[in-house]
Amino acid sequence: MKRIMLRVAYDGGKYSGWQIQPNAPTIEGMLNMAINALTGEQIRVTGASRTDAGVHAYGNVAVFDTASSIPAERFAYALNTKLPHDISVVESIEVRSDFHPRHCNTVKTYEYRLLNNAVMMPQMRQYAWHIPEKLDIKAMNDAAIELTGEHDFKSFCSVHTQVESTVRTIYSIEVVKEQAGIGEIVTIRVRGNGFLYNMVRIIAGTLVQAGKGKISSSDVKKMLEACDRTTACQTAPPQGLTLVNIKYDECTFAL
Amino acid sequence: MKRIMLRVAYDGGKYSGWQIQPNAPTIEGMLNMAINALTGEQIRVTGASRTDAGVHAYGNVAVFDTASSIPAERFAYALNTKLPHDISVVESIEVRSDFHPRHCNTVKTYEYRLLNNAVMMPQMRQYAWHIPEKLDIKAMNDAAIELTGEHDFKSFCSVHTQVESTVRTIYSIEVVKEQAGIGEIVTIRVRGNGFLYNMVRIIAGTLVQAGKGKISSSDVKKMLEACDRTTACQTAPPQGLTLVNIKYDECTFAL
Repeated sequence: MKRIMLRVAYDGGKYSGWQIQPNAPTIEGMLNMAINALTGEQIRVTGASRTDAGVHAYGNVAVFDTASSIPAERFAYALNTKLPHDISVVESIEVRSDFHPRHCNTVKTYEYRLLNNAVMMPQMRQYAWHIPEKLDIKAMNDAAIELTGEHDFKSFCSVHTQVESTVRTIYSIEVVKEQAGIGEIVTIRVRGNGFLYNMVRIIAGTLVQAGKGKISSSDVKKMLEACDRTTACQTAPPQGLTLVNIKYDECTFAL
Repeated sequence: MKRIMLRVAYDGGKYSGWQIQPNAPTIEGMLNMAINALTGEQIRVTGASRTDAGVHAYGNVAVFDTASSIPAERFAYALNTKLPHDISVVESIEVRSDFHPRHCNTVKTYEYRLLNNAVMMPQMRQYAWHIPEKLDIKAMNDAAIELTGEHDFKSFCSVHTQVESTVRTIYSIEVVKEQAGIGEIVTIRVRGNGFLYNMVRIIAGTLVQAGKGKISSSDVKKMLEACDRTTACQTAPPQGLTLVNIKYDECTFAL
């Protein structure tokens, strides 16, 4: 028996999120099916981050145990032959048999992308939120500073969350604008030790309001202090969000 | 009667190219339908660049004449309500009644995008060519220099071309690599006064071979001199190509 860690990229547009559900296509469900087709074993993967419906990833993490003789490194290529084109296993390695992707320290990086043009560009419609109004990038970064550090993010998570503690640490939030052929792309890059349900999308929705001049950085500070979801801004739509990567201390997983 | 110029962005993935065809969806066909639905007039647009099936654009150009009372600038918004989500009119302005988008000097910019990762990322599968082998960007730029300037590009166009002259001028080719969250994106940006059928895709196919070390810049020079399509490399697949913009001297179209 060995434990395999997968790094998984996906275009979440056609999926009802990561977590397996009856009668709806999910990333976890597709991975389980592909592993079962490959190994003949009835396996269920354990995911690091249960991304929402419509959210994308370049590198979510899943682990599973297998008795298969397929070398760990070959699983990526072998699984990609069984998976649809909108899910790719980027890497597969053997890890310690006690490694659990949710029970150890991590740095997770998410990017939320905005297209800041008058008109939405068709190529971005599944990968960005369209904001036609001019955005003040400095105001967005100023507001972001208020959210950086260890805070109770109760105002910045869905009321449907079931976690015990809503305290999390955000290591950094950068808002950068890039003038590309397609137009003005604004990326909100958030790094933290963990995120609550909808947290990055509520942060994105709030920073967009700061960029439009509707709220100030001191308003953001008050939202945090209120510990009340109704004080923060709208949840940004899912298609702008990508889980970029999840970094673990190597000692937690390396053999 | 007034002549309107449209700047049109599209995701070409589901279309059989720009040019109208019976029984196949095309960008031109969709624009004609949208204009007719809006104005009630039987109008056929004249396009600047007849992009191939599967090729994308941020700014192709089309013109048409209309007796409609809709202000020129409002056409963009009005047409977008009639067009599918994978075609957007970015701008609409009134132009001189003798302006023809193919009969005047232009600078056209195309970008060809490669994803240079071991595994294809799902988000790029419709917008890039996957090259898993390591690419030497300097070798690609060296080879590109041979193609810059005025040349007979007979070796770099489809044998199905019907033009009188295969002489064109390329103002610049830049090959740039960017390390993004999604991986290594290599962009081949080509600017010229006009391009032959499949020319940018054959240039991309040839520069990729240079990047893999299969051919040298002196081989590229010999390909040009041979004036024979069989000497150049494969035509790169369409989904990596985007027509970024078409610049006209303002005096050729401004009222």
